[in-house]
This record gives sequence, C-alpha cells and structure tokens, in this order.
Amino acid sequence: MLTPDRISLNTATVKEQWTLAQCIEGCARHGLGGISPWRDKLQEMGVTNAAKAIRDTGIRVSGLCRGGWYTGDGALTNAVLDDNRRAVDEAAGIGAECLVMVVGGLLPGSRDIGAARAMVEEGLAHTLDYARTAGINVAIEPLHPMTAADRAVVNTLRQALDICDRLGPGIGVAVDVYHVWWDPEVKAQIRRAGKDRLMAFHICDWLVPTTDLLNDRGMMGDGVIDIPGLRAEAESAGFDGLNEVEIFSTGNWWQRDPDEVLSTIVERGRIAC
Amino acid sequence: MLTPDRISLNTATVKEQWTLAQCIEGCARHGLGGISPWRDKLQEMGVTNAAKAIRDTGIRVSGLCRGGWYTGDGALTNAVLDDNRRAVDEAAGIGAECLVMVVGGLLPGSRDIGAARAMVEEGLAHTLDYARTAGINVAIEPLHPMTAADRAVVNTLRQALDICDRLGPGIGVAVDVYHVWWDPEVKAQIRRAGKDRLMAFHICDWLVPTTDLLNDRGMMGDGVIDIPGLRAEAESAGFDGLNEVEIFSTGNWWQRDPDEVLSTIVERGRIAC
Repeated sequence: MLTPDRISLNTATVKEQWTLAQCIEGCARHGLGGISPWRDKLQEMGVTNAAKAIRDTGIRVSGLCRGGWYTGDGALTNAVLDDNRRAVDEAAGIGAECLVMVVGGLLPGSRDIGAARAMVEEGLAHTLDYARTAGINVAIEPLHPMTAADRAVVNTLRQALDICDRLGPGIGVAVDVYHVWWDPEVKAQIRRAGKDRLMAFHICDWLVPTTDLLNDRGMMGDGVIDIPGLRAEAESAGFDGLNEVEIFSTGNWWQRDPDEVLSTIVERGRIAC
Repeated sequence: MLTPDRISLNTATVKEQWTLAQCIEGCARHGLGGISPWRDKLQEMGVTNAAKAIRDTGIRVSGLCRGGWYTGDGALTNAVLDDNRRAVDEAAGIGAECLVMVVGGLLPGSRDIGAARAMVEEGLAHTLDYARTAGINVAIEPLHPMTAADRAVVNTLRQALDICDRLGPGIGVAVDVYHVWWDPEVKAQIRRAGKDRLMAFHICDWLVPTTDLLNDRGMMGDGVIDIPGLRAEAESAGFDGLNEVEIFSTGNWWQRDPDEVLSTIVERGRIAC
C-alpha cells in the first residue's frame, strides 16, 4: 500500500497530454510526493522556471530522465559527453535526487555488444567524474533485455552493480520493476545494491499479452509483476525514496484524460503496490 | 561458415507452408544435415512414418520440440506429466538427440514467479526420471525474458544450469542465440555448460526493430546477433551437434516459398554464421 505522498510521477506517463508545468500542478493537485521530468519537457519549460514551480509546490524531484546514450555516435564524442554534463547540470538545477542513465544500445552497424558495453562504462566514468563535482547521484537503469540492441546494453542489476563496483561512490542503480521483474536474481541483487546504491525505484506493470516492446506498459495492478514483493525487498535493503510511476502506453494511458491517469495512479498505489 | 550438412531445420521455420513429410524431403533436397520437428507436425504424420522417412533420407534429428509447459494447469497434473512422457516416447521413436523443454510461464492468475519456477523444476525432475529410462536427453531451453510471463520462467543459461546442477545427469540446455545473445554472462555460461550439457544450438537473428515479441525473428545475417562468436564459444566448449534454424516469422519467412526459405538458410549459413 502506497499513499500518494510516496509516489512520484515520471512525466513520460502523461507525455502526450501535459507540459511540465501542467505535470507539476497535477502532482500537487493529486497529492503526489514528487515528480521526475524528462529532459525534453524540462528544456521546453526552462530549468529556472521548472525549479521555481517545483519548489513552490513543495514536491520532491525523484530523478531526471535521462542521461546516457553513450553509443549513439559510434564513439564517445564530445557531443555525447557534453550532453551528459548538461544533464548533470539540469539535474542539479532542479534538485533531482539522481540522474537516470539509459546507456544506449549497440554501436551503429555493429554486432559487438562487448564493445558497446565497454564504451558505456567509459562514458559513465566521465559523467560520474563531473557529477561528483556537482553532487549529483548517477543511477544506471538496467533495461529489459528486449531493448539491448537499440536502447541499453546494460540489462541486469548484476551487470549494473558490477559497473558500480568498478566505478566507486556516487553511482548506483534505478530499479524499474518492468525491466527486472523476470530476473531470477532480482531480489538478491537488490539486497546487494543496498541503501546507498538504490537511487530510484520505478513502477508500472507487465501486461499479458504485451503488444509492443517499448510502449505497451501497464498500470500497476493490470499485469503480472509482484510489485509489493519487489518494493518490500528494496525497502528492506534501505531504500526510502519515492515510487516513480513511469508508463509508456501509446494505446491506453497516453490516450486518456491526464487527471484520470493520476487518479488511477493514486488508487492503484493503495490497492496494487 | 556453416556448410549445409551442419545445419538442421526446425520445422517451425516453415510451419505455415510444409507438412513434416515435406520438411523431411526439403531437408534432403537442400542437403541439410538434420531436422527438428515440432510435435504437432510429428503427431500429424505419425511417429512410425516420420521415423521411416527420416531414416530413409539419412538426416539426423537434432531435437524434438517441445516438452515442458509444466505450469499451464496451475499444478503438476497427471495430464501435464503424461504429456511429457509421451514427448519422451516420441523423441525416442524418431531418434531425437534431445527433447527440448519450453517450461511454461506463470501459473494462471498468479504473480508468483518463484512458485512457477519451483513447479517447473519439480516437473523437470519427473520427466528426467522417465527420460533416463528411455535414453533421451532433456534440454532446457532458457527463453528470452520477454516470454517470462506467458511461455517460460527459465530465462537465463545460469538459471537453467543451476537446475541441471541440482537434477544431475541426462539434463542440459538448448542454447538459442535469439534468447541469450543479450546476456552479459552468455559466453561464461556456455563454457560452464560444457560438452555434456550443450544439447542443442539454435540460430536465427534479432531484428531491429522487432515488431512482435513472439513471431518477428530474423534470418541469420538480417539482425544484430554475433552468431559466429556464440557458435565459436559453444564449439570451443565441445559442442559438435547441428545448428538448428528456428525462425518464427509471421510477416516474412512464413509468407515465402519454403524452398526459397531453405535456399536462403543454406546461403546464410555460408556467409553469416
């Protein structure tokens, strides 16, 4: 059971309907405890304006989505590294509790997933150096293996935590139940992460059937993920942050009145989380 | 580089076009080294007829697809266990080198993936007992995590090999590159499996984008899997069986002339494997 003050709205959940200003107002109106903007919406509103609006409502910023995408240019270009530094600055500007990293997929035209993974780790090290100076936590989000080719070559918590072990303090993981629920090791790896490295906890649900690899996520309670079980494991490992609702849903939630979406989130927090 | 004699046709690849009898003839005509029937096609032709036709062509039977599905009834019913014994008998009847197990997804109406996994392991133990008496190898096929809810709760080679460790001799894994290519541990787990437990090796390719979770697999060379690299790892671990081509493809290969499909398989074996 999650009360609204323990829930954060990831703006992707209503990205087709609301601007960031509307999201911030909506969170306040529905009593949510926090928000996690995507960068396109943040840049559209402007960091200063957004920071002020968020401060005025008193809600927390559970994260900024997203840095990463290190492999997109086929090399760690200045453009990629600069963009990640800007992401750190934006996270700092709005007081985000972490910068969530979607690391990028295979290099263009390549089948060498090992090369992509090496490039990602090197890129993360660069971003982490800068993030430490800004006091921003870097949270690697392991993405579901079905996204390995085109979105993220970090696909399990074990793999992400191995990277964290090598890179040292200031870097941890964003646990999204959608991406990790299937993993036989998920609970053991959540325990391994521990309080310091559990930087974000994202919720939604896995629908049966799932009709799209990217944009057919379900509202909590509509699918098969044991959300209370995973949440309990994270809390028992020391996580005390917000539960961030991130639902990509072309065919359903992106079509609805966003106030209905937020009401549903609040209701499902009470009965399905 | 794979010569045709090292390739086996999984009948799912042309399931919309050919009966098993036509598949057997087609394999012989294209010089393939083996076949792996699905049970529905085998039952349609009859085990005795199929065994004779296969023997007459001199091709090998790299596997029988599939046993398993232990969770479908929500309990290990006699119906499920009997069906798996029949699968063992059918595998023996056609001289299959292994019985491939797709273990089943979550229990109907349940979110308890741990319970499903426990039931699967108990079911495998039963089938293995019987398979040992028939001299049939049982090959667990870890399926891609995107199938965990509705097809298979065994999703990594590590998990499958842990089960094999507990159940003892006669059980191993079917490595399908489509299901495991993304795994940071895939090569280490192939080495761990070793010759005795590498019972089947399935090939096809991961398309970008992938438009369906089940039936949008690609022909070797059309996607991003490093097939030669994974195959080399398996061979270096001692695998010397056939490379079984299993492509589910509603929109493409199931629409084509099956002789064109087999010619393409032979060609891609030479240039993309």
